Amino acid sequence: MQQSLTNTIEIEVKFSDVDMLGVVWHGNYIRYFEDGREAFGKQYGLGYMDVYNAGYVVPIVNVNCDYKRFLRYEDRVIIETVYTPTESAKINFAYRLLNAQTDELIVKGSTVQVFVHRDNFELQLTNPDFFLDWKQKHGLI
Amino acid sequence: MQQSLTNTIEIEVKFSDVDMLGVVWHGNYIRYFEDGREAFGKQYGLGYMDVYNAGYVVPIVNVNCDYKRFLRYEDRVIIETVYTPTESAKINFAYRLLNAQTDELIVKGSTVQVFVHRDNFELQLTNPDFFLDWKQKHGLI
Amino acid sequence: MQQSLTNTIEIEVKFSDVDMLGVVWHGNYIRYFEDGREAFGKQYGLGYMDVYNAGYVVPIVNVNCDYKRFLRYEDRVIIETVYTPTESAKINFAYRLLNAQTDELIVKGSTVQVFVHRDNFELQLTNPDFFLDWKQKHGLI
Amino acid sequence: MQQSLTNTIEIEVKFSDVDMLGVVWHGNYIRYFEDGREAFGKQYGLGYMDVYNAGYVVPIVNVNCDYKRFLRYEDRVIIETVYTPTESAKINFAYRLLNAQTDELIVKGSTVQVFVHRDNFELQLTNPDFFLDWKQKHGLI
Repeated sequence: MQQSLTNTIEIEVKFSDVDMLGVVWHGNYIRYFEDGREAFGKQYGLGYMDVYNAGYVVPIVNVNCDYKRFLRYEDRVIIETVYTPTESAKINFAYRLLNAQTDELIVKGSTVQVFVHRDNFELQLTNPDFFLDWKQKHGLI
Repeated sequence: MQQSLTNTIEIEVKFSDVDMLGVVWHGNYIRYFEDGREAFGKQYGLGYMDVYNAGYVVPIVNVNCDYKRFLRYEDRVIIETVYTPTESAKINFAYRLLNAQTDELIVKGSTVQVFVHRDNFELQLTNPDFFLDWKQKHGLI
Repeated sequence: MQQSLTNTIEIEVKFSDVDMLGVVWHGNYIRYFEDGREAFGKQYGLGYMDVYNAGYVVPIVNVNCDYKRFLRYEDRVIIETVYTPTESAKINFAYRLLNAQTDELIVKGSTVQVFVHRDNFELQLTNPDFFLDWKQKHGLI
Repeated sequence: MQQSLTNTIEIEVKFSDVDMLGVVWHGNYIRYFEDGREAFGKQYGLGYMDVYNAGYVVPIVNVNCDYKRFLRYEDRVIIETVYTPTESAKINFAYRLLNAQTDELIVKGSTVQVFVHRDNFELQLTNPDFFLDWKQKHGLI
């Protein structure tokens, strides 16, 4: 049984991502995580609209980010987004950002998302059916 | 008859506003204009919710910005937002940003907004009643 | 003699680009222009580092943007960046953003950049040699 | 002996902070943390320029954020920034964001910063003298 799913994309550091020290401003990595998560959603059928059409939105309830090295303007970055299985009614992702030229680890991070009903933002305490179906389809349960 | 209304606020350049040349990234001035416009809306009763409650939203259809000098981290900035009367169904603002320490002109700009119905985003071609009332209240017509 | 150079890229609207009205926040188009300008620079050898290595940086002194239609989350956008020849010591670009699905014009805009010496930010009043060389190479003079 | 120092500021949610679900986009809280940290630096003499003039910059090496509730456009937010003493050569802050109207906890978070030499970005493994002086001045050692 498969224990994880991974999406990998490559992006480039934009001029407006870089701060006055000449390195990517730390807050912008949260956007890079979102870039990775959106690409994962497209690859595996767990995108915003897939979730929305099933009646839910999935807000972030925790983000954690460890910064190991810097990125500079025009650096190319590999974003690895890994789905981390959990039995609780959550979506957990782990992220690794690598410098595409040097293969050095730049940033490690994680996010936790919960399911809330799209119409009233009420928390869904158990796994929604569509999500159990998704897990089954991908050999995660 | 009064020909213009002005709001003035003072803000400070944040670390994340500055680019790798050590000056405010040019795109961030659009946010500064919005800061000025929102403060104007509060002072004169033309805020987002005032407009929304009257049945409209007022998207930007033109923005123009002339950059004269640079701002740096921790510079204090005066934002002057001036309502520019027009007979057409639009809201026109002119902006001047001044360095609060030196009084130098940093940026001049303008925005044009139109009225669209909040429910279907359809363009309103004539001045809405609430806006004519607002103009009258402020001696603009 | 060629009168213009064009770069075309396609990008996708990100979740964090969209405002609470469900459309791309107007200020984010300034970043889209920059995406186009950077891609132009790469295609034609007029990138940030090309300019920097020649001793200059090229700050924006004017940006203008006309908003015609809205973009929504996950819309794909074509960014056309067109170099507009001028004899003065400036770099002028015109931009057209099109909805890649419908081919509708979303936004038209322009930027003007000047040359300043990278070490002291002093304005260069005449065309730098490297820029005349660049124009000649691309059949613009 | 005092065990912590706290700065408190109040800010307002801007239109451009809010995402298409009508709530503050999760990545923008990283900027709110920075707003709090900058205000702390001013209050207690540990600002960017204080650190820079002592020969260092203090990049973030970890950020963690727990999201408890949502903020909406025009909500007023209290940002509490608390310095958390540590003997290692780091600067640790804890953050609490409260809805200023309801006093509800919105977000809890933390950041860790290290000292790097401003000229070569090399890591400083022991507490710099200026920082020990700062701690002593504020009764932390």
